[in-house]
Amino acid sequence: MKFTVTSSAGAARTGSLEFRRGTVQTPAFMPVGTYGTVKSVTPEEVSSSGAEIILGNTFHLMLRPGPDVVRKHGGLHEFMNWQGPILTDSGGFQVFSLAAMRKLSEEGVKFQSPVNGDEVFLTPESSMEVQHDLNADITMIFDECTPYPASKKEARESMALSLRWADRSRRRFDELKSEEPDRGESLFGIVQGGMYGTLREESLAGLTDIGFDGYAIGGLAVGEPEPERLAVLDELMPRMPQDAPRYLMGVGTPVDIAEAVLRGVDMFDCVIPTRHARNGQLYTSHGKIKFRHSGYRDDTSSPDPDCSCYTCQNYSLAYLRHLEKCGEILGPRLATIHNLHYYQKLMVDIREAISTGTLADFTAELRSRYEK
Amino acid sequence: MKFTVTSSAGAARTGSLEFRRGTVQTPAFMPVGTYGTVKSVTPEEVSSSGAEIILGNTFHLMLRPGPDVVRKHGGLHEFMNWQGPILTDSGGFQVFSLAAMRKLSEEGVKFQSPVNGDEVFLTPESSMEVQHDLNADITMIFDECTPYPASKKEARESMALSLRWADRSRRRFDELKSEEPDRGESLFGIVQGGMYGTLREESLAGLTDIGFDGYAIGGLAVGEPEPERLAVLDELMPRMPQDAPRYLMGVGTPVDIAEAVLRGVDMFDCVIPTRHARNGQLYTSHGKIKFRHSGYRDDTSSPDPDCSCYTCQNYSLAYLRHLEKCGEILGPRLATIHNLHYYQKLMVDIREAISTGTLADFTAELRSRYEK
Repeated sequence: MKFTVTSSAGAARTGSLEFRRGTVQTPAFMPVGTYGTVKSVTPEEVSSSGAEIILGNTFHLMLRPGPDVVRKHGGLHEFMNWQGPILTDSGGFQVFSLAAMRKLSEEGVKFQSPVNGDEVFLTPESSMEVQHDLNADITMIFDECTPYPASKKEARESMALSLRWADRSRRRFDELKSEEPDRGESLFGIVQGGMYGTLREESLAGLTDIGFDGYAIGGLAVGEPEPERLAVLDELMPRMPQDAPRYLMGVGTPVDIAEAVLRGVDMFDCVIPTRHARNGQLYTSHGKIKFRHSGYRDDTSSPDPDCSCYTCQNYSLAYLRHLEKCGEILGPRLATIHNLHYYQKLMVDIREAISTGTLADFTAELRSRYEK
Repeated sequence: MKFTVTSSAGAARTGSLEFRRGTVQTPAFMPVGTYGTVKSVTPEEVSSSGAEIILGNTFHLMLRPGPDVVRKHGGLHEFMNWQGPILTDSGGFQVFSLAAMRKLSEEGVKFQSPVNGDEVFLTPESSMEVQHDLNADITMIFDECTPYPASKKEARESMALSLRWADRSRRRFDELKSEEPDRGESLFGIVQGGMYGTLREESLAGLTDIGFDGYAIGGLAVGEPEPERLAVLDELMPRMPQDAPRYLMGVGTPVDIAEAVLRGVDMFDCVIPTRHARNGQLYTSHGKIKFRHSGYRDDTSSPDPDCSCYTCQNYSLAYLRHLEKCGEILGPRLATIHNLHYYQKLMVDIREAISTGTLADFTAELRSRYEK
């Protein structure tokens, strides 16, 4: 993987991430393909939205269908028929969300599979092994996602554990790569530390000492108010390595993304465009549309007349509403196609705004559109 | 609409149905698009399976979204984005399946909407009006589908009522067409009479007296054993007009279709390929596959190596099983794409077998494949 910054304006920058499987323009948004499918659409539909990289979930794929099944196909690319790069998370975030069902130790996390009740033990080493089987283009270290709120003591202990796990992740990743050099293109560290600037700084210093191909910011988008999130970014981002990609995990709305890019973030993933599509919400150039609304019953107009996606070019709001009312499978799909397209167009517009030095205005305008 | 027989072998024949919106090769299979969508696929996917005409359900579309909404878009073609011809049924079959919830009179059928409990009154006239709003290329008369089993007396009374309704349907259809000549391309009659040859004959005679563009066989595929269905066809088909298309409603499996074509049927519709796809069953060149089976857990092979559809070209049985186990929306879609493709390829093969005079052998081979 090779990362190149191609232009910058303040902290924001455009760039490119080159992988064996293709090049990704940054800032980039990665649609989430939890179970080896971006829900309700084909890889071709994801690709035609403009997306160049997607995310797969190690935790889920480890449980179903199992890493051996994916590996038998070659890897996740062949299994799900996606030819471009794939980032896999490490499972840390999902384990964190299991709360009472998990048991944390220095060695790793023991939990009961929510699928079949089996006891599963996930460690930095086993997470690397699963991601190796999936053949991720970007592997994420296994970390503990510090909950919100957390005391400084809790956040420090959690961060320190994540650092030790980062080191173990790095070692196991390198071993696996030396055994099979064709697999395992890059490994990203994850900055933790809760809402505490000094802990974030300490985490980052530890990670850069180990050395990674990219650095993610974890432990945000976990329920904290927007000002707290932006304060963490304001303090942390200037210290992040300039020559490595920066990935804000699990964020967010269009406004969240633009605000983070303003502060220097290069990569994003979030379930919002796909999940909200399935809940009947469209992001459009005129703000958010909830197409279940009875006012759209006989509305023959396009969901977003300014949008060039397949859905907006061929279907009416009344049709989308009708599909939703009838529980038709085509409904989530058409809505997902639109939202994915909207998000990728947003990233195109953001990259354009960086190169013309107008991202602050763009972000303010975006905010006013969604808060109206 | 213009129907031309292009070749024949015994009772079987190939032909073409020309509509303003395109030409349909016969024998033809029409995928069912109940609510203005062939479940889980786009019109482009239906079309790329080879399908040239689809079926829409008047009963369902009348209740949701309502004929006014469809009409406001122009018609069902514009509403659902299907450019080719559409046949709409009359609602008679669905009303029949409501059983205790309906009240039958000479005038029509009163029933409670299963959607919202509203009282709905469906008559030959109102069925024609709804289908006119939908702008069907083939409109079906409103009839009563005789249940199975039925005594000869019950079957006779039901058939006689359907004949009177056929006459009223014809009149109302012609009125509507004279008001708007651009709508309402053709009207088909429906032969009823239960399992009684003399009643079927009487029904057919009554319908040909009125005169229709095509003749359907109704009241089959309602639970009768295959030999009874074939006996009705054996007796009825030789009496059907030679120069009009013959449509066997609601049939069937690949073998059912081949057997009916052997007896002179030109058109079919059935939910089997789409519904069975959603239930995890694929029709393949090697027989039926139930891909939920645990034996497919790590099966990297294509569902049907001899099939050229998108699904078989890009995905494994293990992947289909995985999607199904995870309840992923892409699963029904990939299965539907395959089954639709299989059915259309079956029709291509059947037309080819007619022109080479080998349909009887083809049908026997098909039967042995599915009964093995």
